[in-house]
Amino acid sequence: MRPSYRVAIVGATGLVGKEMRTILEERGFPVSELRLLASERSKGEVQSFRDEAHVVSTLVEESFEGIDFALFSAGEEVSREFAPLAVKAGAIVIDNSAAWRMDSEVPLVVPEVNDGALTKHKGIIANPNCSTIQLVVALAPLHDECILERVVVATYQSVSGMGSAALDELLAQSIQLANFRPVTQKVFRQQMAFNLVPHCGSMQSDGWTSEETKLVHETRKILGEPELQIAATAVRVPVFIGHGEAVFVELEHPISVQEARDLWAEADGIEVRDDLEAGTYPMPVDAAGQDAVYVGRIRIDESVQHGLSFFVAADNLRKGAATNAVQIAEELAKRRESGH
Amino acid sequence: MRPSYRVAIVGATGLVGKEMRTILEERGFPVSELRLLASERSKGEVQSFRDEAHVVSTLVEESFEGIDFALFSAGEEVSREFAPLAVKAGAIVIDNSAAWRMDSEVPLVVPEVNDGALTKHKGIIANPNCSTIQLVVALAPLHDECILERVVVATYQSVSGMGSAALDELLAQSIQLANFRPVTQKVFRQQMAFNLVPHCGSMQSDGWTSEETKLVHETRKILGEPELQIAATAVRVPVFIGHGEAVFVELEHPISVQEARDLWAEADGIEVRDDLEAGTYPMPVDAAGQDAVYVGRIRIDESVQHGLSFFVAADNLRKGAATNAVQIAEELAKRRESGH
Repeated sequence: MRPSYRVAIVGATGLVGKEMRTILEERGFPVSELRLLASERSKGEVQSFRDEAHVVSTLVEESFEGIDFALFSAGEEVSREFAPLAVKAGAIVIDNSAAWRMDSEVPLVVPEVNDGALTKHKGIIANPNCSTIQLVVALAPLHDECILERVVVATYQSVSGMGSAALDELLAQSIQLANFRPVTQKVFRQQMAFNLVPHCGSMQSDGWTSEETKLVHETRKILGEPELQIAATAVRVPVFIGHGEAVFVELEHPISVQEARDLWAEADGIEVRDDLEAGTYPMPVDAAGQDAVYVGRIRIDESVQHGLSFFVAADNLRKGAATNAVQIAEELAKRRESGH
Repeated sequence: MRPSYRVAIVGATGLVGKEMRTILEERGFPVSELRLLASERSKGEVQSFRDEAHVVSTLVEESFEGIDFALFSAGEEVSREFAPLAVKAGAIVIDNSAAWRMDSEVPLVVPEVNDGALTKHKGIIANPNCSTIQLVVALAPLHDECILERVVVATYQSVSGMGSAALDELLAQSIQLANFRPVTQKVFRQQMAFNLVPHCGSMQSDGWTSEETKLVHETRKILGEPELQIAATAVRVPVFIGHGEAVFVELEHPISVQEARDLWAEADGIEVRDDLEAGTYPMPVDAAGQDAVYVGRIRIDESVQHGLSFFVAADNLRKGAATNAVQIAEELAKRRESGH
């Protein structure tokens, strides 16, 4: 009989936390006990898992007794404080925050790309940022085949990356504007409905945003290429779920459009959507609710030697967060079961 | 006394045609007669210009008798057929369609950048594509100072570039989705509300779209650099008015962020919006209704030698179309008055 695991979700009432619960169920992860944890104010909330009611309890120091896998998605501060406590209690933490991603002793893993990094860890595995995950899933097969020299990426990021209140506010603002009323703003610093905001995350010292530097540093770490040249501009767009990315790469070795298409078609976790004539290309509305990273608009970029340009879309809550975390748990369980 | 001119607007009932009328009035262009022309089905529509009612008449071969300047914005076919007739009747045509832009005998002009190109023409001046205009206004001062080697641009284009029916359909789809009803599609091939569509314009042979190749060829022509390396991805976003562009340039000579900011602050037609901490950056919601090209998010791009990255936003109907056309007319009038 296959073993089963006691799993905790920290941040169980957030958008990603809820998605983690859904995906554990969808993928049939062998859960013997599910412990839903959140802050004091969500205590007592009832969620369903495999048709059974589960009550959310308050995250405390003792929350992790007996837990095998703790999936964290409650922000950096919570992860910094509670991940070590979970490890101490014997759990393996899979952390969706930025708290541990750049720690040299913490593997930063996208299973399709670098599951080998899971062999050595101190109890914490970091889940990359949403925009990084969909980028590296698309880049990895290309890097294996042609070697990346430089990556330029412009993102089109949906508001769900900012949590469930952002979904509500985009909807509210859209309705307000449709009725010629002024917009209300609580979550967004700027009007988000029918607008573009070239500011995702916090400001860094040199004018870059945290979302942009994450794309650079996390991609380098996952691909194991600390010198890879990457430039990024991250823009929030009035979309509920699903991030888009316009990507321009410079390769050491040339590749044709058909070769790239074939490469991606065979790669794990990718669906090619590349037929402009048929109106087939990656779009958030198709990617939302799916686990694949959609790749399309594949073109030779003649403005540089061995240039290739393409567009990527994926569900930022699923593959960009919850699905990737559960895939890491699956991989760790597999390794444990086979004795690695 | 300053001379005044008889002006025709072809496509007077379209979004850009209406904006041309507004801008002629706003800028006090010396109009002695305004002739509003459109297709048969708009005949009899009444528009106001300087508080006087003007009746739209049907565009016919004889529409241009006595006209000095004919501003065209009625699509390529109309321009191909009627621009030569207008020239024959003695008018100078300023054409907003793609029909004549790449004709070697037709100047393609953004007055802030290459008004010198107006000295020689055969009666037709082409107005560039909306996404090209805002790009070259930002690129030109940088090119003058540091010489562009390569430009990578990802666009975020509003739906108004597709005409007034597109505005209605984005609003309708947004309301439908807010009410959990299926979306209706007539103008858009894809759901546009709360989605991203990486497909602007028609398909070209090599997988690029017409909007992307226009960015390449028109930018080269306006800057007078037929070999300039440019890569572009054009994406339609659920915004009513105002295009955004994430731009990454490689320069022959280095420039600091402050030097670039100063350069743009002094340049004609540009407003610098570059203070991330204050939440100040180019956004469609601010650019809409304005004539300036907004430039911000200015950063050194260390992924390449002498790299600079920035974000641009402008009103695609005004500076991206109507304002630029009226500026060309002003420039031509000035030259005529000074005997050039």
